[in-house]
Amino acid sequence: MSDRVKYELSEKDIPTTWWNPAADVASVAPILDPKSGREVGFDELTRSMPEALVRQELSTDREFEIPDEVREIYRQWRPTPLFRARRLEKALDTPAHIYYKYEGVAPTGSFKPNTAVPQAYYNKLAGKRGLIVETGAGQWGCAVAFAGALFGLDVQVFMVRVSYQQKPYRRALMETFGAECIPSPSTRTAAGRSILAENPDHPGSLGAAKSEALQMAYADPTLGYARGSALNHVCAHQSVIGQEAIQQMELAGEHPDVVIGCSGGGSNLAGLAFPFLRQARSGGPAVRLLAAEPAACPTLTRGRIAYDYADTMGLTPLFRMHTLGHKFVPPPVHAGGLRAHNIAPLISRAVEDGQMEAIALRQVECFEAGMLFTRTEGILPAPESTHAIRAAIDEALAAKAEGRGRTILFGLSGHGNFDLAAYDAYLAGTLADDSLDDEAVARGLASIPEPIAV
Amino acid sequence: MSDRVKYELSEKDIPTTWWNPAADVASVAPILDPKSGREVGFDELTRSMPEALVRQELSTDREFEIPDEVREIYRQWRPTPLFRARRLEKALDTPAHIYYKYEGVAPTGSFKPNTAVPQAYYNKLAGKRGLIVETGAGQWGCAVAFAGALFGLDVQVFMVRVSYQQKPYRRALMETFGAECIPSPSTRTAAGRSILAENPDHPGSLGAAKSEALQMAYADPTLGYARGSALNHVCAHQSVIGQEAIQQMELAGEHPDVVIGCSGGGSNLAGLAFPFLRQARSGGPAVRLLAAEPAACPTLTRGRIAYDYADTMGLTPLFRMHTLGHKFVPPPVHAGGLRAHNIAPLISRAVEDGQMEAIALRQVECFEAGMLFTRTEGILPAPESTHAIRAAIDEALAAKAEGRGRTILFGLSGHGNFDLAAYDAYLAGTLADDSLDDEAVARGLASIPEPIAV
Repeated sequence: MSDRVKYELSEKDIPTTWWNPAADVASVAPILDPKSGREVGFDELTRSMPEALVRQELSTDREFEIPDEVREIYRQWRPTPLFRARRLEKALDTPAHIYYKYEGVAPTGSFKPNTAVPQAYYNKLAGKRGLIVETGAGQWGCAVAFAGALFGLDVQVFMVRVSYQQKPYRRALMETFGAECIPSPSTRTAAGRSILAENPDHPGSLGAAKSEALQMAYADPTLGYARGSALNHVCAHQSVIGQEAIQQMELAGEHPDVVIGCSGGGSNLAGLAFPFLRQARSGGPAVRLLAAEPAACPTLTRGRIAYDYADTMGLTPLFRMHTLGHKFVPPPVHAGGLRAHNIAPLISRAVEDGQMEAIALRQVECFEAGMLFTRTEGILPAPESTHAIRAAIDEALAAKAEGRGRTILFGLSGHGNFDLAAYDAYLAGTLADDSLDDEAVARGLASIPEPIAV
Repeated sequence: MSDRVKYELSEKDIPTTWWNPAADVASVAPILDPKSGREVGFDELTRSMPEALVRQELSTDREFEIPDEVREIYRQWRPTPLFRARRLEKALDTPAHIYYKYEGVAPTGSFKPNTAVPQAYYNKLAGKRGLIVETGAGQWGCAVAFAGALFGLDVQVFMVRVSYQQKPYRRALMETFGAECIPSPSTRTAAGRSILAENPDHPGSLGAAKSEALQMAYADPTLGYARGSALNHVCAHQSVIGQEAIQQMELAGEHPDVVIGCSGGGSNLAGLAFPFLRQARSGGPAVRLLAAEPAACPTLTRGRIAYDYADTMGLTPLFRMHTLGHKFVPPPVHAGGLRAHNIAPLISRAVEDGQMEAIALRQVECFEAGMLFTRTEGILPAPESTHAIRAAIDEALAAKAEGRGRTILFGLSGHGNFDLAAYDAYLAGTLADDSLDDEAVARGLASIPEPIAV
């Protein structure tokens, strides 16, 4: 019991720069205009993004300086703790060492404020009066509501309807911060009305909510639109997670053999894993990277690499990435934050290049892992994070079967305090397992646009 | 923006001893047997408490060593952060400096694990197979469920019915940790059946739930009963809060003029405030201490100082303390953790001796303060903690009116992530204000036992 379980850093160890994975981890294909097939450049992107963020999005510089105003707010919860899961190891009777980096100590309980705060800051600097976003399970919406409150920005959030119903407390939290929360698809936008016309019982999807948010933002130049995941600048902002984890693993005197993150839009995984990949490429020890995605939304394991839209209605330009098709509608599993048809082009490229593995996990096995984690480590994980826990446990059990040590690091991306209805269903034995059928996947894949003749 | 907002300590600064307020802050009257009127001593107390805890309860030693096994677990969340509320100060336009010590970073989101962990540890050492407790809003039940899971103890929780209904997620969290949660009054115990016979719609009270838990524990010697507040050893365990805060205020280069805590059973307030009082009595700077209690359960401001039971059915011995009468049933306000008819004898004595002030605050004004705090500081407070926030804001506004500086420290005893239904009601304008009538107070006071002729 006297060995360390927590690896602490102090305020001076908060990173001073964001590491840009586009500089070294993977080169990302250009963003294309769906009509002309031409590359979308700086000027076009500034129509929906402050210039500072567009510069980051298109940059291949290795680092971006973190503004003092942002770092000042980071100090409220960063550096986040890194723990060794000794009690979990003991319960598994494994020779593996399991570490986790815990982002749930942030004000809204997930890693999302790491990018919500700088995006709110840059939008405020650019003179915007408000922010519009979409949210799945609500983590992104809460983070933007928090950041908006700090910078005096009005915040409107389109929340995927099934999550709006499953997680009423996340909606209430957004409203407590002063934001407005709207279930999507809604009748407020042409996009929402068009989706509802096709299917009045549409459970919502991240892609559909994104269409609604984008349409509102494009219509009013005083409003900014903030991206919760997928884009390069978002992955860069999240690098604070991995940068700190590198310092903390050094304190622990170990190096991870495998780094695991749950995978939806990809930014939490990118933030934790890519700094380790940079380290490996700079002569550091080798590392395996592992993406853990839900079987209900198997973007990396069953999607195609193709140019596709990031939203359901096709309002965004085209990104080259793993996609299940922009019209794909995943079943309503509780890991709402992972229900994205597409993934960060940087993550997609890392998988394509063989630098990252991917596995798909089922809802019930993930909740089982989450329960064991709660009872041993004392922290209730978000349903999204249970995917990383399940994968970490499986790695630890594999090490046990082989009778060999293994050092495992996973990202505990958020707490599950707002997800107790899901745990309640699990405990009552009524939590459904994933019900994704091949036909739904085929329908989704069929919505991937034909390649553009350039 | 470049001034510090967070005052950090490192693992080595976690206290190594608990400070015992009974050594110096106040001398507490003996505990009496209600039948004989004789002092209840060591042997009798060990019937429901491990010897190590009884020794702490009766001790006037200045300090108790914190066992390594407990300190090891404290390291998961301690030291907790101390913040300067610069954004709140700005919103109030006050010359006052406002600091808060934040206990919501603990695994179950409140200060309660500070004592749940050592109590589970000592009960495990004493050979108990399980723990039984009562809980109001659920913070204590969750903390014991967490601690029980770590030490392999079965946990049963009697939860005040009105909170059981208002806060279903706290129940689910206890169950996720493996505990059983029973709404009280229940039909499981003679105490519960008797209370229900008098009033089938009884909303429950801490006193009634305590009767049920005690009756179950007394009936089975393999089960321990753990106390969430009020007793001396609990106040001592909570001294880790104040001990850390003293170090952190030194880092900030300031000394609080006033230290504020919300006040229910009193242990959170004792834990933060009494170490500052010890410091003052050892030649340190003077400090005002302020207890902020709900107008719906005004133990310190409308109760009497008398010998009374700690539970509704009169199963406990008699403690001399402020009490509204052990049959007092407070209205069902959302600050369930503060709905106690009685208070820690140590706090009671400090108020009696003029070393601590007390004020009663109404529910709606406290939620108003909580909303302002959330939007400025980014942390959603528990309804209980909003009482301390309201009092701190009123102190800051008084300083502004006087045009003078003031250094205010308050305890943010927990987060409100499980209390969003209450915030939702506040936002919808349906949150009722306290409805305590004089008759209910008179009925409660009438249940204080006649003084025993010794």
